[in-house]
This record gives sequence, C-alpha cells and structure tokens, in this order.
Amino acid sequence: MVRYLGQQEAIDVDVALFNEYRFSVDQLMELAGLSCATAIAKSFPEKVGQEVLVCCGVGNNGGDGLVCARHLALLGYKPSIYYVKRPDPSKTLYNNLVCQCEKMGIPFMEVSDVDSKYGLVVDALFGFSFKPPVREAFVPIMQALKTTKIPICSIDIPSGWHVEEGCPPEGGIQPELLISLTAPKKCAEHFKGKFHFLGGRFVPPGLAQKYKMDLPVYPGTELCVQLNNDL
Amino acid sequence: MVRYLGQQEAIDVDVALFNEYRFSVDQLMELAGLSCATAIAKSFPEKVGQEVLVCCGVGNNGGDGLVCARHLALLGYKPSIYYVKRPDPSKTLYNNLVCQCEKMGIPFMEVSDVDSKYGLVVDALFGFSFKPPVREAFVPIMQALKTTKIPICSIDIPSGWHVEEGCPPEGGIQPELLISLTAPKKCAEHFKGKFHFLGGRFVPPGLAQKYKMDLPVYPGTELCVQLNNDL
Repeated sequence: MVRYLGQQEAIDVDVALFNEYRFSVDQLMELAGLSCATAIAKSFPEKVGQEVLVCCGVGNNGGDGLVCARHLALLGYKPSIYYVKRPDPSKTLYNNLVCQCEKMGIPFMEVSDVDSKYGLVVDALFGFSFKPPVREAFVPIMQALKTTKIPICSIDIPSGWHVEEGCPPEGGIQPELLISLTAPKKCAEHFKGKFHFLGGRFVPPGLAQKYKMDLPVYPGTELCVQLNNDL
Repeated sequence: MVRYLGQQEAIDVDVALFNEYRFSVDQLMELAGLSCATAIAKSFPEKVGQEVLVCCGVGNNGGDGLVCARHLALLGYKPSIYYVKRPDPSKTLYNNLVCQCEKMGIPFMEVSDVDSKYGLVVDALFGFSFKPPVREAFVPIMQALKTTKIPICSIDIPSGWHVEEGCPPEGGIQPELLISLTAPKKCAEHFKGKFHFLGGRFVPPGLAQKYKMDLPVYPGTELCVQLNNDL
C-alpha cells in the first residue's frame, strides 16, 4: 500500500531531488506536467477537442500547470491559461514556460463564465507547501472553483485544502481528478472524486526506499498509474 | 507521409526550439531521452531485467543517452554507461545528468565483452550535427558497435552514418531500432532495421507546419509512434 506523505516529508523529498540527486526544476517540472496531462487525457478522453481552463498559481504548482497546458494542447485539448500573477522578469524558467505556451497559441486570459465556456478546469494554484489562509489575489478564482459544475483536475493538492487534514471545515473545492506527484500527500486520503492518479515517474528507488513510499508499479511504459480503481 | 529533414533543416529546427520557443535543453533532453527509453521498452519488452550498455558521446546526443539510461532503469532494465569523455566542470546540465545516474546506482564503465555481457546496446554517440570523420577517441567504440551481434538502438542517427546519405561506403553500424527525434533525418530512408520509431512529442504545430514535417499522429497519450509497421 502506497504511503501518504506529510507536508514536511514532501518538502524534504523535493529538497533531496534537487540538492542530492541534482535534478533541475526544468527537468522535473516537465515530467510532472506531462504526467498530469496524461492522467487528464486518460480520465477524460471524451473531452478531447474541448476548451480547458488551466488555473496557475505563482509557484512550482503553477509551473506544473503551464507545462500541463502545453502538453494538453499537443494531446488535442484547447487549453486557456489563467495565470494569477505573471512571473518576475528574473525568473527565467517561468518566463520561458509562458513563452512556450504563447508561441503555441495558448491564450492567457481572465476568468469568466467557467461553466459555459469550458469542459474541464485544471487546478494548479497551490501545491504541497501551501499553508492557509488563501491570499487576497486568489480569493476570486478559489470562489469560482468552489462553485463550478465543470470537473476539476487538481495537480498534487486540491487547492485550498490543508496538505495533511484535507478539505477545510468551511468548505473547499471538490476535484473529480487528483494527480498526486511523486507520492500522495496525506490530504489525498480525504479525496472523494472519481479518479486518483499518481504521476511523476522519476523517483529514484533509493529515495522511495528512504521515505518508505511503497510506490505502486507503473504499468508498462505508462507515466501515471491509477490509485483508485473506478476506471 | 512524414518528411525526412536535411542536416541544415534539423539544425534550424533545433535553433528555433531553443531561441524562438525558448525551451531549455533540460526540458527537451528529458522528453527526448524519455521517449527513447519508451521506444526501447516497446521494441524489446522481452529484455526487461537485462544489462544494457548505453554509449554516450560528448554532445546533446550523449545527453539524450544519459537521460535514456536513467529512464531505462526506472523501466526495469539494468543500464551501464560508457561515457566517451566526462563533461567539463562548467557544463552544469551534463554533470547533473551524470550525478542523477550515479546516485541511482547506474555504473559508468569501460567497454569490453559487449556480446557476452549485454542484451542491448544504446548508441547515443553522434547526433544530427555529425560530420565525418569519426574522431580518434571514438574509433574503438565505433569498432565494437560495428562488430557486435547484440541489437543496437540508435538515438536519432545511427552513429557514423552521414546524416543525409546514410551508411558510409566503407561500412557502418546496423541498428535494429532507430528512434528519430522531432522528425526523421534523411539518413533514416536507408534504415533497414526492424523498428523505426519517432519520439520527441513536443514539436509546436506551428514549427511542424513551417518545416512541412507532416508528422504522424501519436496514438493516444503515447510518447513515440512507430513509423514502419513490423510490430
């Protein structure tokens, strides 16, 4: 049985991947975002060709979202990106990820009429380092995601959820698909949506062992593996 | 019908990906190497668990090989790497790629007894910028690959082949699998091995159109597509 990581463990694993194994953010973000797009395509194949709203926060989770949007376009979806805040010019990777999307014709836009315009929403707002409260700039998009009837696909953490405790008592978003990256975090135990996938098939076996992740076997050459079995 | 690119076109496409679309080498090398490992696993599923010799040159083709080796390990193969020359300390990406492999327990070694030790050989020596003659340091490994009876998997270009004309008149290596990256190069028209795959599913449609690549449709969420149909 795969083990669900606490917040500090998730942070420690991330640090080890970058410092000890010397992965670059570019590398792992590319693999993570690709596995998210793959899990979305496996969960919602009937929505190919439809408009997808990809909501990106300002950190690594948002970066995963930018990569995911690009791969969704290559998989035949029509992504648009709501980027809560454009990156500082000094952040080369983020600016490049934006450029890659723009050059591929993926529009960046404000959010309106989610339920009438889109067939899917990708939630890449907050990741495993999130601590409440939600900051001011995120309140409107969080409100929109809480009330939409369109299926939400959350990257790593349903945004606004406590990373360990899950959905906050005052109510939160309810994704239909959760893609846990590297290993699921404790909040995923409270996930009640239809599809729970694990992505990020890049964890060195030694690291998985050190943190007793007990990762499931990815089938064949697949980039993601379903953890619940509703398919 | 997919179009086969000339050497200068391949170089121009590469330049556009990095300068115009602002991809980082880290990103595209990760996707390229991953697609190579995937194509190898699809072509030789019966060799999972076996020793694989990954021969890496000093440029980007060698970098693809390092990434491929790491993903082969994650797919259940047992890669060892022959790296013709360790990278200069200033080359951060290459040193990191080496570190990632080493930390995952992938050995770096000299080449001997290819036919008795390995079940597969990956050829990541020269890529699409290769111009003859083969440099001194590469002569022994090229000789070993010319004479081995173990199946060779060439990344992008069968090493030593003219990028447009194919196998040199004096004889060259004969890979069983060729993984063309981004788009096949002209030499691939002369490929007679069993499996020809296209990998590198990251080409922006606008760029594919500009170079009239006529890329085939990748099936579903697959990272590679077979161009000949012997499977």
